[in-house]
Amino acid sequence: MTGRTARRRVSRITLDSGPPGGRADLLATEEPLGIRIGGQAASLTMRTPGDDIDLTAGFLLTEGIVAAADDIAAIRICSGEQCGHGDHEGMGNIADVTLRAGTDWHAPRRNFLTTSACGVCGKASIDDLRAASRFDLCADQVRVAAAVLVALPDRLREAQRVFERTGGLHAAGLFTADGALLAVREDVGRHNAVDKVLGWALRAGRLPLSGCVLLVSGRASFELAQKAVMAGVPVLAAVSAPSSLAAELADEAGLTLVGFLRGRSMNVYAEPQRILSD
Amino acid sequence: MTGRTARRRVSRITLDSGPPGGRADLLATEEPLGIRIGGQAASLTMRTPGDDIDLTAGFLLTEGIVAAADDIAAIRICSGEQCGHGDHEGMGNIADVTLRAGTDWHAPRRNFLTTSACGVCGKASIDDLRAASRFDLCADQVRVAAAVLVALPDRLREAQRVFERTGGLHAAGLFTADGALLAVREDVGRHNAVDKVLGWALRAGRLPLSGCVLLVSGRASFELAQKAVMAGVPVLAAVSAPSSLAAELADEAGLTLVGFLRGRSMNVYAEPQRILSD
Repeated sequence: MTGRTARRRVSRITLDSGPPGGRADLLATEEPLGIRIGGQAASLTMRTPGDDIDLTAGFLLTEGIVAAADDIAAIRICSGEQCGHGDHEGMGNIADVTLRAGTDWHAPRRNFLTTSACGVCGKASIDDLRAASRFDLCADQVRVAAAVLVALPDRLREAQRVFERTGGLHAAGLFTADGALLAVREDVGRHNAVDKVLGWALRAGRLPLSGCVLLVSGRASFELAQKAVMAGVPVLAAVSAPSSLAAELADEAGLTLVGFLRGRSMNVYAEPQRILSD
Repeated sequence: MTGRTARRRVSRITLDSGPPGGRADLLATEEPLGIRIGGQAASLTMRTPGDDIDLTAGFLLTEGIVAAADDIAAIRICSGEQCGHGDHEGMGNIADVTLRAGTDWHAPRRNFLTTSACGVCGKASIDDLRAASRFDLCADQVRVAAAVLVALPDRLREAQRVFERTGGLHAAGLFTADGALLAVREDVGRHNAVDKVLGWALRAGRLPLSGCVLLVSGRASFELAQKAVMAGVPVLAAVSAPSSLAAELADEAGLTLVGFLRGRSMNVYAEPQRILSD
């Protein structure tokens, strides 16, 4: 397996500062990870290597394929070296998943969606898009002080190991309501960073993530809101803007959705009662 | 079809500035678009409505399903209203594609990849991941002045209609080597913004996009580099960092890859001879 960063010679151009200068630059590594379940292809994601078992576990959870750590019998990362192809350079991996005996899995629901008769229209659609969560966020009575929330982006940034060196990685962080950092993961893909942190929580026996805050470094899409719901996280906060569908899902699921968490301010798009501003 | 933005009541909290204030906020609309080819599900993407035919055409091009506008007999956007379901609210759409008679299409190559024997390892993998482009970028002798490039991010931002109001949209812009804007498209997904702009070019008969610069508002991933190659764009520029695999693909395909295009500076990660710094 390769590392999280790759060194590369680049040509740096600054206008009015003489000829281009060569220098070494660190790039965030991006490589494919294929996920197979019982030998059957389930997903291919472009991700930053590292925490691949967490990523796979998180994918299984947030896609609704498993509900608990016990549903996973094994996750084996096959780097190709055991496959008899001796001369590979190790670009990418396969995660081979074995589910607990008796656990069915179905093709991802999105395939279902595109084959449905008239497609994606009307009020029923958000239900079609949603994987069913076994956690009821509405029962989560946690309260989070706004003063705690505004401190989290700096804390997330400090905990990022790679971003500062590459500028190319998203981060997801899981915090307690008091602002204590439970876990942070990085990836070139924001959805992968979230799957890694939620997969860690699944494997650590911490589900549902009642009373927790999930912070993402960029924007909050429908997909990220759905992942939060699947793990029982009551508060999703993003440094940038949420999408319309993320806010709609948050309404339906009882998820507190915070956006533009910057400086000493934030916007609360759904379930604001969990955020204490005084 | 709904619009590119959705109005929503939010609770704005600013510490030490009194109680939360309610206010209206504009969110970037995110809705699903299913793409069917000959009635068969090919893709589902979460996108911002608008330019859906361009988006679909761009998807067909950059996935290697079509090579020219003539390969597409028809793209029909089905909003559900014609489907006999009278009470839908129009959340999402289906794009029904009819290919020219005799045009085969295969399941996306990524499915192939995850079902391959040992998976994704070794030097052959980048070829497996790549869709075959019919354009040879190495033959493109265009030269672009660095002074032209540094002006493009501001030009892209000015051309964005929605971003300023929502903060939630990525943009892709297509420029000539002299810096003239040919097309700009926005989307909650960066890959969709690129597909929209390249689909526009396909439908306008402008392929290959020799001598052009494709600028994206954020980072440059493998996927975006691949899309540029599929449309014959010789220069891909990003405001933020590229990934390692984007740079590797750029090397192999002869694509000039520019990152961190900010202020009066940039890094050139591959094929720097096309960028003139004096």
